[in-house]
Amino acid sequence: MTDTEVAGQASVTGPLSATVRTRHRRLREQGRTDRAELLAVLRAGFVAHLGVPWPDGLMVIPTVYGFDEQQAYVHGSVASRSLAADTPDVCLTVTVVDGLVLARSVFEHAVNYRSAMIYARPRVVEDPEEKLAGLRLVSEHLAPGQWDYVRQPSRKELAATRLLALSLAEASVKIRTGPPDDAESPDAELGRWAGELPLDSRWLPPVPDPALPPGLEPPPHIARRAGMPAHPCSSRE
Amino acid sequence: MTDTEVAGQASVTGPLSATVRTRHRRLREQGRTDRAELLAVLRAGFVAHLGVPWPDGLMVIPTVYGFDEQQAYVHGSVASRSLAADTPDVCLTVTVVDGLVLARSVFEHAVNYRSAMIYARPRVVEDPEEKLAGLRLVSEHLAPGQWDYVRQPSRKELAATRLLALSLAEASVKIRTGPPDDAESPDAELGRWAGELPLDSRWLPPVPDPALPPGLEPPPHIARRAGMPAHPCSSRE
Repeated sequence: MTDTEVAGQASVTGPLSATVRTRHRRLREQGRTDRAELLAVLRAGFVAHLGVPWPDGLMVIPTVYGFDEQQAYVHGSVASRSLAADTPDVCLTVTVVDGLVLARSVFEHAVNYRSAMIYARPRVVEDPEEKLAGLRLVSEHLAPGQWDYVRQPSRKELAATRLLALSLAEASVKIRTGPPDDAESPDAELGRWAGELPLDSRWLPPVPDPALPPGLEPPPHIARRAGMPAHPCSSRE
Repeated sequence: MTDTEVAGQASVTGPLSATVRTRHRRLREQGRTDRAELLAVLRAGFVAHLGVPWPDGLMVIPTVYGFDEQQAYVHGSVASRSLAADTPDVCLTVTVVDGLVLARSVFEHAVNYRSAMIYARPRVVEDPEEKLAGLRLVSEHLAPGQWDYVRQPSRKELAATRLLALSLAEASVKIRTGPPDDAESPDAELGRWAGELPLDSRWLPPVPDPALPPGLEPPPHIARRAGMPAHPCSSRE
């Protein structure tokens, strides 16, 4: 255990530091310490899974998110118990699945993926300016261009929305790419096919709300997403 | 609070019962109680997110899984601290993202998704027969046909693998489909395009391990997955 782990002096700049919670114990070859890799995973992901304490244990909820270089933002209703103001440490995990790794034995099968785990005590964003900026980050990560195209939040809507900021100081990144690891093993003699089955996720052409007046076309920032990869910057793009 | 909630008499048959943890408090129109919907989400999903207790809080780890009508199975190394034998209640969440819901206001934006949350105290599977059957369920959910095609686990590999069974008795399912909810709101007068941006995930053609001997073709159960949807049975298929 290093001094950093003991002191827990994680920072939002520099390499991803190993704390008690983020030190890579197993499959270390998949661990990354470059902070740019963390931001790349957050950029490529789309829906995160947020773990929060819950009666008799915990719950894991899917949620959209936004981020800048210092923190990730998640939002929800002020009535939501899972985003309670007094929440202790949570874990926000973003996973992008890039494909299946088909090996010569069941045991060596794996998944090619990119994953980021952020450990933080959520801060409820109260400052109106940061709240609007944070919600804009969430919205623009989800649907770039929409914030300026549609009606922005009213005072009442803002009051009904809770925004949580999670520091990116304590985070861990794991990435697996490439073929299975058993090419040099005795199993190679079995004569079984091995390799990868890549997974491709793309946006389809937009489907108009049936209630739209005729002739109203999607704006360019929506129309041009059709056919684009949903999780860009994988090893395949 | 109903009697079922008080008693927590969740069962693996019949409708999904409302316990303290699984009662739908918000967005109730997205909640489902048909047990068949739980199995359908588990069938459509591919990678789950498992929330487990961890020093100073909890962690959320991506993992593959298998399931039958009674339980879900997750596996890992016996050395893994996150799959420790004495783990208290965990939450396993499977989420399939079907698309973006683009509304006339930022506030009404949403995601079309199918999600299942399972709350359970993990049971470490010790019985050799159940362990093999459970691992087969995991393997076949990931890559149907591989269990019989490749080398099956050795005694040593089985000993190095921990398999956890999670009862499906206490589970909740949420599904959102369709266009945004603001067609009847005053925002409809804004003249903004609204609708859905569907997300399509498909398997690409298999990529051979560069170490394979020349002329070794993928078996039919792998080759025919190319082009198939990764999350079948959505509203689009």
